[in-house]
Amino acid sequence: MIIKAVIGVLCAAVVLAIGIVIGHFGINNSSAPSWLNDVAKDVDESLIEKFLAEVDTIHIQENLRELTDVPHMATTPGDEKTVQTMLRRWQDADTGLDDAWREEYNVYLSFPDPNNPNKVTVANTVQHSIREREKAYTSDQDDPEVVQPYAAYSPAGHAKGKLVYANQGKPSDYEQLSQTLNLTGTIAITRYGGAGRGAKAINAAPYGVVGVLVYTDPLDINDGLMSDTNETYPHSWYMPPSGVERGSFNRDFGDLLTPYLAAKEETYRIPPENIVGIPPIPIQPIGFEDAYILICALGGDAAPSEWQGAFNCTYNYGGPGFKPTSEFNNRLSKNSANVMGVIRGSVEPDRYVIYGNHRDSWVHGAIDPSSGTSVMLEITRVLGRMVKQGIWRPRRSIIFGSWGAEEFGLIGSAEYTEQYFAKLSERTIAYINVDIAVFGKKLHMFYLSELNKTMLLIFHASSTVSQLKKSLFKVQPIIHYQQQSIFLRIPLVCAISYHSLFLSGFVSHQAVARTAGNILIRLADSLLLPFNCSDYAEILEDYLNTAVTLYQQQLEAHKISIGKCKTATDVFGDAGEYCNTQHTGRNIMPLKVRRINDQLMLLDRAFLDPLAFPDKYAFRHVIWTSSSAGKATFPGLADAFAQAESSGLDSDWDKVHYHLSVVSQAIEGAASTLADVI
Amino acid sequence: MIIKAVIGVLCAAVVLAIGIVIGHFGINNSSAPSWLNDVAKDVDESLIEKFLAEVDTIHIQENLRELTDVPHMATTPGDEKTVQTMLRRWQDADTGLDDAWREEYNVYLSFPDPNNPNKVTVANTVQHSIREREKAYTSDQDDPEVVQPYAAYSPAGHAKGKLVYANQGKPSDYEQLSQTLNLTGTIAITRYGGAGRGAKAINAAPYGVVGVLVYTDPLDINDGLMSDTNETYPHSWYMPPSGVERGSFNRDFGDLLTPYLAAKEETYRIPPENIVGIPPIPIQPIGFEDAYILICALGGDAAPSEWQGAFNCTYNYGGPGFKPTSEFNNRLSKNSANVMGVIRGSVEPDRYVIYGNHRDSWVHGAIDPSSGTSVMLEITRVLGRMVKQGIWRPRRSIIFGSWGAEEFGLIGSAEYTEQYFAKLSERTIAYINVDIAVFGKKLHMFYLSELNKTMLLIFHASSTVSQLKKSLFKVQPIIHYQQQSIFLRIPLVCAISYHSLFLSGFVSHQAVARTAGNILIRLADSLLLPFNCSDYAEILEDYLNTAVTLYQQQLEAHKISIGKCKTATDVFGDAGEYCNTQHTGRNIMPLKVRRINDQLMLLDRAFLDPLAFPDKYAFRHVIWTSSSAGKATFPGLADAFAQAESSGLDSDWDKVHYHLSVVSQAIEGAASTLADVI
Repeated sequence: MIIKAVIGVLCAAVVLAIGIVIGHFGINNSSAPSWLNDVAKDVDESLIEKFLAEVDTIHIQENLRELTDVPHMATTPGDEKTVQTMLRRWQDADTGLDDAWREEYNVYLSFPDPNNPNKVTVANTVQHSIREREKAYTSDQDDPEVVQPYAAYSPAGHAKGKLVYANQGKPSDYEQLSQTLNLTGTIAITRYGGAGRGAKAINAAPYGVVGVLVYTDPLDINDGLMSDTNETYPHSWYMPPSGVERGSFNRDFGDLLTPYLAAKEETYRIPPENIVGIPPIPIQPIGFEDAYILICALGGDAAPSEWQGAFNCTYNYGGPGFKPTSEFNNRLSKNSANVMGVIRGSVEPDRYVIYGNHRDSWVHGAIDPSSGTSVMLEITRVLGRMVKQGIWRPRRSIIFGSWGAEEFGLIGSAEYTEQYFAKLSERTIAYINVDIAVFGKKLHMFYLSELNKTMLLIFHASSTVSQLKKSLFKVQPIIHYQQQSIFLRIPLVCAISYHSLFLSGFVSHQAVARTAGNILIRLADSLLLPFNCSDYAEILEDYLNTAVTLYQQQLEAHKISIGKCKTATDVFGDAGEYCNTQHTGRNIMPLKVRRINDQLMLLDRAFLDPLAFPDKYAFRHVIWTSSSAGKATFPGLADAFAQAESSGLDSDWDKVHYHLSVVSQAIEGAASTLADVI
Repeated sequence: MIIKAVIGVLCAAVVLAIGIVIGHFGINNSSAPSWLNDVAKDVDESLIEKFLAEVDTIHIQENLRELTDVPHMATTPGDEKTVQTMLRRWQDADTGLDDAWREEYNVYLSFPDPNNPNKVTVANTVQHSIREREKAYTSDQDDPEVVQPYAAYSPAGHAKGKLVYANQGKPSDYEQLSQTLNLTGTIAITRYGGAGRGAKAINAAPYGVVGVLVYTDPLDINDGLMSDTNETYPHSWYMPPSGVERGSFNRDFGDLLTPYLAAKEETYRIPPENIVGIPPIPIQPIGFEDAYILICALGGDAAPSEWQGAFNCTYNYGGPGFKPTSEFNNRLSKNSANVMGVIRGSVEPDRYVIYGNHRDSWVHGAIDPSSGTSVMLEITRVLGRMVKQGIWRPRRSIIFGSWGAEEFGLIGSAEYTEQYFAKLSERTIAYINVDIAVFGKKLHMFYLSELNKTMLLIFHASSTVSQLKKSLFKVQPIIHYQQQSIFLRIPLVCAISYHSLFLSGFVSHQAVARTAGNILIRLADSLLLPFNCSDYAEILEDYLNTAVTLYQQQLEAHKISIGKCKTATDVFGDAGEYCNTQHTGRNIMPLKVRRINDQLMLLDRAFLDPLAFPDKYAFRHVIWTSSSAGKATFPGLADAFAQAESSGLDSDWDKVHYHLSVVSQAIEGAASTLADVI
């Protein structure tokens, strides 16, 4: 009986247990919907491993070969060929993206007239004609599609005058030179660097200079060596003596006839004579082979030591001169295409990680931009295949952009951003740009926020993460440049490049593809965005300290207090620390995750003030706007201070006070977005 | 045995069933977290019923008595008393909010000098002195704190000249008058309406007018009757003959010394002489009792019929005149407080519904603004108690604002918005403003998006919802005004007022409190925001049709195509319809709900362009920016067209094309935020 009872109880217990199991697991619990796991899913490390393993050097090599087959300057037949390549790859049934398409803009470009090529001629005691084309070292360089060296957006014209040496063509260079020489009617030869390309001509015109030449001094390239032909390309990555850096000589970016508007067919265009920020006088780039002959022949006093370059002669100011004749470029409107591709997000399709690079080159573009594009195509191949195979779909959407007409002034990406401004600024997590993936000897990687330290250490040979963090200020100009390329403000920008071109077998390209893809996947898949609330606090504190050191005394003398800015920076620091404490692990409510991510995504945008810099095209950011004052502090304050100090006018000191108020309010406002949400 | 077996099986079945029940309900299912119900919860109708039942006329009456006890012009001791009232109520332990505090700004105001009161004297064949103070009908009006009638921000000065009648002081009025008379050295008497208060003086100055008087013509108030004392207040709601409408005579809003910056202690202030948009010549408001005497005594030709008001005499242009002497106002900076209060949201604390009203009055302010404030206090009492009792917490956060110094130009709300611009523009769902809750004979309720039709029908006596929808264009000026009061752009603005003041027992106040509170709760608690994606499409289509009718022919004559704008409007219509199909019931993923709500919340903001209207202070919205052209179409286009048509200059036609491109791009950009998210 006892046994029976025990058996009965045991049976009952077993039946009960079975019932519990059925009840717990067998019945679809209506309170646990199917999306519950999706919303809580974090980045999958094994999937990243899989991605890293599949990135393949052979594919990258093939990409590069196909992309650089012919010169593909913006809007040329070679450019159209690369459009078709991108579309074919991104629409591939097995390795393509969810969707890909072309977006076309009609933009204002500048080309040399093939029937009337630019000439620079020296006629004096030294008879010399500047090379019209670079020396061809390989057969592809004989392609008639290789554009003659020229300065895009330089006006056409004939300039004749005596030659002078004007260092980098900065305002201070011309100012200094004009104290020695009367510059009226002269031609200035300048080296790249220090001032923007077009600025070298814009700065010269007020002094009566009638034409400008520009070259790359070996001091600023080729490790400072004045290498001869045997030591340069194709024997090393050094630039050959006849090589000329082409470039766009406009100060602003985007289509010059449609500022802030996408350059679509019916869009209003300003009259070309109203364009600002392009050279008012003819300017022409030349190789250092020719520059060497010109500069070493210059007379006059010796230029100061900081004006000296790498030539084995003294750089004189000039005074004896030559009579160059020059003819310049046609400007015209042409159609330029972006190629766009997307992978749709599964959980938060309305959050975008954008990855892009331009597609157009000046010539064949094996480095700029096709090293980056071949890397991008390999990344999309591996990711596209994982999507097509159904083994992966990112949490957030990924947008790939292959921009047109970048070399003429970031045109493709700027027009895209103008067209979709509201959507992009509401939803973009980050923009990653990989242009020149491989060049020179080091990995260059610039970023604003700390990502995954391990990952960085794997791919970064020469610097530790903390060194990289400290170098933040040094890389600002590059950050600016990259951020301009898509001028909505985004919290993270990576510009990545790696190692020497001559590492065998495209290992360096592969390393960049792995690094960039790794970052991309983490941005797209991480539950909580891998950003740090308090990185900005460090920057603000450094900026404030610099401002106090440089300006406080004079500010006080003009009855302007920096106290509000100090308070705001302190408040921001506290808010950043508080925000970091909110990063609390897993299993938090999906709307709380979204809220924290929105705070992180929009933090950088809280510093935008569209009215603070009316004279600086497209700059709106009170921390990162470009500044001519050259101080590592708040740019509006720095520029206004320099102006007030120089003029001494009360109205200029008022502007200093204004910019101090603007930046203080922006910091306080940004802090309030990090503090407790209500 | 069979029985035993049956019993055994039955027992087993029962035990199994118990097990299933335990397993299903008794074990905390780790895959169904506790927040799951919260995120899916929609608005609770029974709670709204409870709210409606608890809104109490007695409390509103007490609120109004306390708020209107003494005159409470901005920054006066009476104003501080109302600050303390708000704080005491919102910090109450049983019926207060989660948190409440004061925010102070130092702002530039304008008051008459009590030792040197403004005078208007007529010295001619008719000897007459204008009343310096209104006749007191009740004892509270004898309060020495009642400010003398004056025009805030009018310059001080002595103006003498002959009187002329200039209708409403519009540019066209002065233009027309100047064809009959030489206006140099005259004083113009004008009636309210047609042009902004300050504009009546700004428009006059170019004609040499030296001073302006302004009054409310009975035609524009009191149902057009020139009522005598027995028929006006306190015997009816009609304005008495000596009553004077005070007001701020600035064109722009917010603190005039700190445009776009919060007026904090150290903030940069522009020099007062740089303020634009305030009267350049003295201006003074007077009652219609005095205006009657002046206008009926005017000589000269009869003014045209549309210039005639309700006085029982012919309004002549003038020509014979008087010699008024007048002395005017002091301007000075004073501290003004907002009182802020919040109820924190439970699920989406980072989404805000803002409810506000100003607190300052010109005199006792029983209608403007205290009728609204007494309603707001009753709403917060009922909601605050539900929160304190733990029976309710809204899904989203609610922010209450009691703004200071509104009468001087929307100062309190503008400074608040300037200070927290980034946060508010990222997170605000809607702003509800209830200022004059009760005035006149009708319910006025203006809104942009369709809410709950039933609710509207309950509280709206005279119009159906469809009538209200059709009246959208008519109420635009009021929408503008209200939206300016917090100049970030928000998709819904309600301005509510109701019925006659003389409905007994504050029933009308109660109705407004119920309506406004009902809207507030629905905005805060609805799972999907009660907005409609395609409301905007109708507006855009109407605007486009008007533009085609009015402009297309002339646009084509100037080779400007309206085609892009048509395409954009079509695309927007399709996107709106698509977006509406996304409103799919319950049990959808919380991040999808958030995504749809974000689309709805940010739609209106997609039309912002901070650079489109450089000459219109604080206006950035390409659909709702104010326009002087008076056409129900895109404001930038309308104004540019009027200018081009009048000047005939090519450069002005260029601006027409520019504005057409701006609006087309904005519509296309906004459409892309409604379409599939990627």
